[in-house]
Amino acid sequence: MLLPLKDLLEYYGGAASDVYFRRAHDTLAGENLDPVVTMEYFGDRAGTLCGIDQVLEILAARLSEGGEAWALAEGDRIEGKEVVLRVRARYSLFGQYETAILGILASCSGWATRAAEVVEAAAGTRVISFGARHVHPLVGPIMEYSAIVGGCNGCATPMGAQLAGLAAPSGTMPHAMILIFGDTVQAGQAFDRHMAPDVLRIVLVDTFKDEAEEALRVAAAMQDRLRGVRLDTPFERGRVTVDLVREVRARLDQAGHPKVGIFVSGGMTVERIRQFVAAKAAIDSFGVGMEIAAAPPIGFTADIKEVDGEPRTKRGRIPGVTAAPRLKKVI
Amino acid sequence: MLLPLKDLLEYYGGAASDVYFRRAHDTLAGENLDPVVTMEYFGDRAGTLCGIDQVLEILAARLSEGGEAWALAEGDRIEGKEVVLRVRARYSLFGQYETAILGILASCSGWATRAAEVVEAAAGTRVISFGARHVHPLVGPIMEYSAIVGGCNGCATPMGAQLAGLAAPSGTMPHAMILIFGDTVQAGQAFDRHMAPDVLRIVLVDTFKDEAEEALRVAAAMQDRLRGVRLDTPFERGRVTVDLVREVRARLDQAGHPKVGIFVSGGMTVERIRQFVAAKAAIDSFGVGMEIAAAPPIGFTADIKEVDGEPRTKRGRIPGVTAAPRLKKVI
Amino acid sequence: MLLPLKDLLEYYGGAASDVYFRRAHDTLAGENLDPVVTMEYFGDRAGTLCGIDQVLEILAARLSEGGEAWALAEGDRIEGKEVVLRVRARYSLFGQYETAILGILASCSGWATRAAEVVEAAAGTRVISFGARHVHPLVGPIMEYSAIVGGCNGCATPMGAQLAGLAAPSGTMPHAMILIFGDTVQAGQAFDRHMAPDVLRIVLVDTFKDEAEEALRVAAAMQDRLRGVRLDTPFERGRVTVDLVREVRARLDQAGHPKVGIFVSGGMTVERIRQFVAAKAAIDSFGVGMEIAAAPPIGFTADIKEVDGEPRTKRGRIPGVTAAPRLKKVI
Amino acid sequence: MLLPLKDLLEYYGGAASDVYFRRAHDTLAGENLDPVVTMEYFGDRAGTLCGIDQVLEILAARLSEGGEAWALAEGDRIEGKEVVLRVRARYSLFGQYETAILGILASCSGWATRAAEVVEAAAGTRVISFGARHVHPLVGPIMEYSAIVGGCNGCATPMGAQLAGLAAPSGTMPHAMILIFGDTVQAGQAFDRHMAPDVLRIVLVDTFKDEAEEALRVAAAMQDRLRGVRLDTPFERGRVTVDLVREVRARLDQAGHPKVGIFVSGGMTVERIRQFVAAKAAIDSFGVGMEIAAAPPIGFTADIKEVDGEPRTKRGRIPGVTAAPRLKKVI
Amino acid sequence: MLLPLKDLLEYYGGAASDVYFRRAHDTLAGENLDPVVTMEYFGDRAGTLCGIDQVLEILAARLSEGGEAWALAEGDRIEGKEVVLRVRARYSLFGQYETAILGILASCSGWATRAAEVVEAAAGTRVISFGARHVHPLVGPIMEYSAIVGGCNGCATPMGAQLAGLAAPSGTMPHAMILIFGDTVQAGQAFDRHMAPDVLRIVLVDTFKDEAEEALRVAAAMQDRLRGVRLDTPFERGRVTVDLVREVRARLDQAGHPKVGIFVSGGMTVERIRQFVAAKAAIDSFGVGMEIAAAPPIGFTADIKEVDGEPRTKRGRIPGVTAAPRLKKVI
Amino acid sequence: MLLPLKDLLEYYGGAASDVYFRRAHDTLAGENLDPVVTMEYFGDRAGTLCGIDQVLEILAARLSEGGEAWALAEGDRIEGKEVVLRVRARYSLFGQYETAILGILASCSGWATRAAEVVEAAAGTRVISFGARHVHPLVGPIMEYSAIVGGCNGCATPMGAQLAGLAAPSGTMPHAMILIFGDTVQAGQAFDRHMAPDVLRIVLVDTFKDEAEEALRVAAAMQDRLRGVRLDTPFERGRVTVDLVREVRARLDQAGHPKVGIFVSGGMTVERIRQFVAAKAAIDSFGVGMEIAAAPPIGFTADIKEVDGEPRTKRGRIPGVTAAPRLKKVI
Repeated sequence: MLLPLKDLLEYYGGAASDVYFRRAHDTLAGENLDPVVTMEYFGDRAGTLCGIDQVLEILAARLSEGGEAWALAEGDRIEGKEVVLRVRARYSLFGQYETAILGILASCSGWATRAAEVVEAAAGTRVISFGARHVHPLVGPIMEYSAIVGGCNGCATPMGAQLAGLAAPSGTMPHAMILIFGDTVQAGQAFDRHMAPDVLRIVLVDTFKDEAEEALRVAAAMQDRLRGVRLDTPFERGRVTVDLVREVRARLDQAGHPKVGIFVSGGMTVERIRQFVAAKAAIDSFGVGMEIAAAPPIGFTADIKEVDGEPRTKRGRIPGVTAAPRLKKVI
Repeated sequence: MLLPLKDLLEYYGGAASDVYFRRAHDTLAGENLDPVVTMEYFGDRAGTLCGIDQVLEILAARLSEGGEAWALAEGDRIEGKEVVLRVRARYSLFGQYETAILGILASCSGWATRAAEVVEAAAGTRVISFGARHVHPLVGPIMEYSAIVGGCNGCATPMGAQLAGLAAPSGTMPHAMILIFGDTVQAGQAFDRHMAPDVLRIVLVDTFKDEAEEALRVAAAMQDRLRGVRLDTPFERGRVTVDLVREVRARLDQAGHPKVGIFVSGGMTVERIRQFVAAKAAIDSFGVGMEIAAAPPIGFTADIKEVDGEPRTKRGRIPGVTAAPRLKKVI
Repeated sequence: MLLPLKDLLEYYGGAASDVYFRRAHDTLAGENLDPVVTMEYFGDRAGTLCGIDQVLEILAARLSEGGEAWALAEGDRIEGKEVVLRVRARYSLFGQYETAILGILASCSGWATRAAEVVEAAAGTRVISFGARHVHPLVGPIMEYSAIVGGCNGCATPMGAQLAGLAAPSGTMPHAMILIFGDTVQAGQAFDRHMAPDVLRIVLVDTFKDEAEEALRVAAAMQDRLRGVRLDTPFERGRVTVDLVREVRARLDQAGHPKVGIFVSGGMTVERIRQFVAAKAAIDSFGVGMEIAAAPPIGFTADIKEVDGEPRTKRGRIPGVTAAPRLKKVI
Repeated sequence: MLLPLKDLLEYYGGAASDVYFRRAHDTLAGENLDPVVTMEYFGDRAGTLCGIDQVLEILAARLSEGGEAWALAEGDRIEGKEVVLRVRARYSLFGQYETAILGILASCSGWATRAAEVVEAAAGTRVISFGARHVHPLVGPIMEYSAIVGGCNGCATPMGAQLAGLAAPSGTMPHAMILIFGDTVQAGQAFDRHMAPDVLRIVLVDTFKDEAEEALRVAAAMQDRLRGVRLDTPFERGRVTVDLVREVRARLDQAGHPKVGIFVSGGMTVERIRQFVAAKAAIDSFGVGMEIAAAPPIGFTADIKEVDGEPRTKRGRIPGVTAAPRLKKVI
Repeated sequence: MLLPLKDLLEYYGGAASDVYFRRAHDTLAGENLDPVVTMEYFGDRAGTLCGIDQVLEILAARLSEGGEAWALAEGDRIEGKEVVLRVRARYSLFGQYETAILGILASCSGWATRAAEVVEAAAGTRVISFGARHVHPLVGPIMEYSAIVGGCNGCATPMGAQLAGLAAPSGTMPHAMILIFGDTVQAGQAFDRHMAPDVLRIVLVDTFKDEAEEALRVAAAMQDRLRGVRLDTPFERGRVTVDLVREVRARLDQAGHPKVGIFVSGGMTVERIRQFVAAKAAIDSFGVGMEIAAAPPIGFTADIKEVDGEPRTKRGRIPGVTAAPRLKKVI
Repeated sequence: MLLPLKDLLEYYGGAASDVYFRRAHDTLAGENLDPVVTMEYFGDRAGTLCGIDQVLEILAARLSEGGEAWALAEGDRIEGKEVVLRVRARYSLFGQYETAILGILASCSGWATRAAEVVEAAAGTRVISFGARHVHPLVGPIMEYSAIVGGCNGCATPMGAQLAGLAAPSGTMPHAMILIFGDTVQAGQAFDRHMAPDVLRIVLVDTFKDEAEEALRVAAAMQDRLRGVRLDTPFERGRVTVDLVREVRARLDQAGHPKVGIFVSGGMTVERIRQFVAAKAAIDSFGVGMEIAAAPPIGFTADIKEVDGEPRTKRGRIPGVTAAPRLKKVI
């Protein structure tokens, strides 16, 4: 975590909280009102629940003086309007955390949901989340964590990997490094010289030359030390296509490199991944960035359903506790 | 800021950075390669630039030993593929910050761009960003800051307001407070009793009763102390509509409350705001949440264009410095 | 019937008949031509046949001197271009009634056809035709009769009910009555005081207050005397929705009124009824107005197919009697 | 009129009235309530107002004891939601006529509105309403009257012509007559022998032979006595087309019959008429049937806006009299 | 064939060959380069292979000095990118024939492919290719040959029939002949007088009169000598429709001519033929013109895959011989 | 021409003519009918007239014994249904040439029309027709001639160039030649050694390496002798794009080769050419193949309009000579 829990709680309940919760708190305090309320949280569409573990960590700290909570589990598939969390406690204990609780669930579940769609499209081929660069770095590792909750097999930042409990982050080499070397083969060989043994030798092959030509040059130079090539053909050259993958595979095989894998990245979407899968292109793993990073949040809502044990809620909602048999008591 | 700059730099350049930048660094260091490179940054579509001030703060710290930078200004309207930042320095000084730099620009510019569309649709009516609850709280205030760079007139969290240089955050009262009171009039009167004088007395009028009926009850009870009513009709009751606004306005006027304003919120989109504006509905301000919060990031890219003064770049891009007369030297 | 048959025949064969039939009659008479012709009648699309009983009543009167007719039955499902009526008689006996015969079949079958679609969409829930106000009152009751031939369970006007053989028309109370009372509860209680016992106590609950609130007030005041509430939420408040029905149902149940039914009306279409049914909303009956009233007529055509026993017809049609095994001899 | 006004009033206020108006009447009478109410009537979309004269005839009879009314004029172009009629009187005097008043305006304005669109499409060419056969004969002449209010130049039934104040109905000859003769030329000559001099000699030329061939035969036989030919090509032969009109025109001209006009009918719609007009086809008049007859009613609504002088109306509407400067006092 | 093979070879390899093949030839000759190459030919979409027999005739002549070829067969169904021809020989022997080889396959396969779609749509009814007039006469008979390879049952030109191995071309009579006679019956009888016995007596019946009327006149005049009538209704009269065919069939049957067949032509497309078939219209044969004649060519490509036995090809393609088990050795 | 005119006439009037013209001829001869007829020819849509010169050559030979003709000129822009040719002569002189006349106009005008669209899209940049390989070689040069009538600036076959009156055909070098050399630079240098001075040195640069890289290699090797590079990127690598052209242009300029032009080909369509033009890509000429070659024919029709001076034509058309002031007397 970026900050100790204590500091996070202060931030979430204050500087990062919608100011009207502070105003509600002051008004209620002025009237000496602090009933036990039952609040339910639900999303506006189906997806994969993510962030609930972080939320429960906050609630556990806040409800230490009293209160109960029921929740679904991190990674659960949820339906639209399904209750994912129910809290029963004095309102003053958790009312000001509504902004933070909803926001954590919104962002994380949005990313996990899209990641699950990507993973389903990949139909068994590994998917690595490479999109940290497309979101603010304060949440980049959290986005990666959410992608792995959604089913991805790896991610790119050390903190993302740590949050997700992975042994290590994934990564090959950036175009910048190859450009500095001025030659892909030299760059690949230097990379091989200096990396620890557990780092996969995967060389990016679209920087200077045609991908097929470069793949053969690198494979010839590095032989069995080469684990794979990465294709990341830029938009201006038509992105990576099924035909390109087939050709590189065939040319590598013809040149005696059947064990050199092919890793593809660059604008990978659910739709494009489906096309690669449908065409049975021989791909070892997909690197997916913006498709997951730009996933819209799921809109979460918190509704009071009881006040001091009496069913009460706003117009448009049904008073009283909602039937939600999947919820487990967690606090 | 959530963290001191020193800690942020450590985090951005390490735990939050794609691991392959670390690997590139190690490889280049192993080969004693550290040329001066010129790197250019550009987005993949038109919009409103945001986050560049944060980025320049990072770069200023990193290039203190040497290096130059040119940039556009916070809030500038940018075109797709337009260079918004150029850095010329030893690669080791800033290479590992690529993830953070791109991520800051991506998220902030995405939010600012959508906010600008909302503000344009509102055609002069005030727009308040109420979407902190729809993004992770670590970036909620930054989202609000970006919305204000895009043209919004207010936001909901204290830190958002502080980042944006506003005097105070904006907010009325949550449904939760009214539900605890059990009656909107009582809630409004209590709010009035306990709030500081500079807090606007705006009462939410859709919790228990029909909006028009409740607006009249509240206005009758609070008279001149009432600054406005907020309509936030839930989806289940058809959201706020042009007709509802017209009717509430007419009934307030008939009852002698022409100065009581109308604030609308709840699922406001660019499209719906355009409809309200086209219908000349008498609205004092729009509260906008998910529409801005869910704006997709703008995809930013960093390209090396020169290495030790020699034009060099990858296939698909044009080597050498791009003509970009709007750039100003900033470091 | 509005008029005695004799008067109707005079009107249908004269003032309401296309004048060219009079001109054809005079020309043929001038030439002493009056062959026995066989004429067939068919519609231009599939649907539910309605009006044939009225048509046969006309023909029975006109063919008393001689002639035969074969027909399908009232309420039969028909195909496009299927022969629904065949008449064989001297042309002078029925030629001038073509306008009336086609017009009766056109309007009535149009209404019955749409009603059948509505009833199918309602999937077993009762449907009451409330659309008399959307058609000219000379045919309002006939529209209602046709709706019942198409499967509706009730209608609103006394003559409509009489034509359809129902015990009584259906109806609750208009907004006007509640507005005159100024309060829904008072209006409901007065209604209860003055209506005969067989009139269902169904109170309209959207006039002054939120529907859920008003439903609870009315149910509390009338207790077991209340048979149901009617939701007719105006367009300006989002019409009746699935969510509204669910909420009113839940709130009535929570307040101990499980026997109070819910009646919905207001812009009900086949499409919207399907949505309510798909969502399993707990509805006792649908009131349907414009959807049936505005149904387009089915275009009917009358073709001479034989003249004095010889097959003869116009270009584009096939001379001679069409194979039509479903026809029954009726005259 | 089909019935004396006295009988119509009884029917409209009783057998043809939605039963809940009777129930409201009995309830209000039981409570001795009969306030002066102000009721406003408006349609749900723009169009041509029709039926208001019939409505005012009813109101004049009912308000003879007291009451006022303001209205727009028959044939006025109206906007959606524009007030077309305002009545201020004791509710018992006109409350039960709501079904009839709305129904008359709905049907008549629906027909007049579509007729106006047809007439606009025809751009100056005469349009005759031939659709009586597509609606119930009780309203056939009223539909024709409405079509003429909408701008049509003629209609087919004697009562339609009388209602509209035309000198005579329009009509040529039906296919049935030609089929009985067995030859178009013979039929045309017989028609000519027996018709009064003021009846136009227009012969239908698509019954037995190709239209162009038959037109030339008829023109050769009847010479200057022939006023025109009617093309009513059936659907099975491709309907009347621009090319057919051009060819018939050219062949008639070549054969020395430039004064013989061309009348077209058969499935004429706004869209098809626009095509004929755009192609400058030489057409003397269009006969239009189903396009006008099947026009959907305009949905009219009656709202109480004042009760005993006090502004009062239902949710969703604005209490009090609506600004409506175009209204003229009529009663 | 229009020309002797020798002359064709000279033309195909010279005046009709893209000039850059000549330039390549001169350059390679100047460098004394003439390797044995393996070239593969494939189309860009699925279809019916046609023209391969002509191509093999050319290759057989050119490879008489040495070389091999493998091919699919005339009329084979092929997939997109499937190898249809492989040639292994010294490049100088066949390199300059690439334009001709690809062009023959492109045009012929395009026509055969569309013809196969037409024939499939006709579902067993005979299809005659009548489109020679829609392509340049140098290839008119070749188009007809291709149509028959695609499944058509007959064609219109003597050379087309000869190329396809048919006993005789098909044809009825042109409008021009009937116009010269001035009467269809006279034209039909004269045709019958002068034609050899094996020519089918099929009379075109849409020139002067309505098709149904004319069909009956011709059948009455020619009786058993009439084999059929052809309907070719022009666009201006709505083309031939299902209804027209049904009516003509019914009227012929009623008049005692059940053996007179119906032949339809005029703008027949795959889509329209499907409609006739779906409607079970009683049609003896379809005459199809532009639909086949305007079929777009299939784009064929020739790729070198080996040079002197070594796999070699251009970027985007896979070096070496493609697995193609359906190929048969033909040279 | 492929054949002497005498042989062509025999072929066009016999083996390549629809057999029913022969049958009409025999029937008319049998009846001693050979009137002077006036026949008009028109297309079914707007476009560019082409082939009329070939048609007039045929007619001149056939009408040497008598007859007149009026025509528009080769390359004229024509409207749909506009008369492009009128012939007045004894029918026996030209009746059997209808198939050939219509076919020549159909194919040639189809190609010229599409070519004109391509040329308009190119907005001044040169367009070379490279599509001979996509049509049967008997008409390949005629397609090229038509493309030049439509506005193209060059074509690929010697006979096409000759027909069009060009000094020489256009062409660079095929992939096959480069593949045989095994290296693009060697191939380019050899080409330069052996070609006549007037052949442009344009080297195809996509065979083995990335286009930009290869372009620079070739330019470095050939220096001022290089006139241009051709980009023909295959479908599998994303075709030629605007970005690729921009990059190659920029890299050539940076390397000191501003005079080396860029020639693009490969799947060029009207739509794609518009995109290049809109993007102001620096292109010297477009090579267009299938887009023109696959243009559908224009459907031409021949109608008899007079027989022995009397207006006569078939149903659906207007008898007599059509007003056509643009026609010039040509025979």
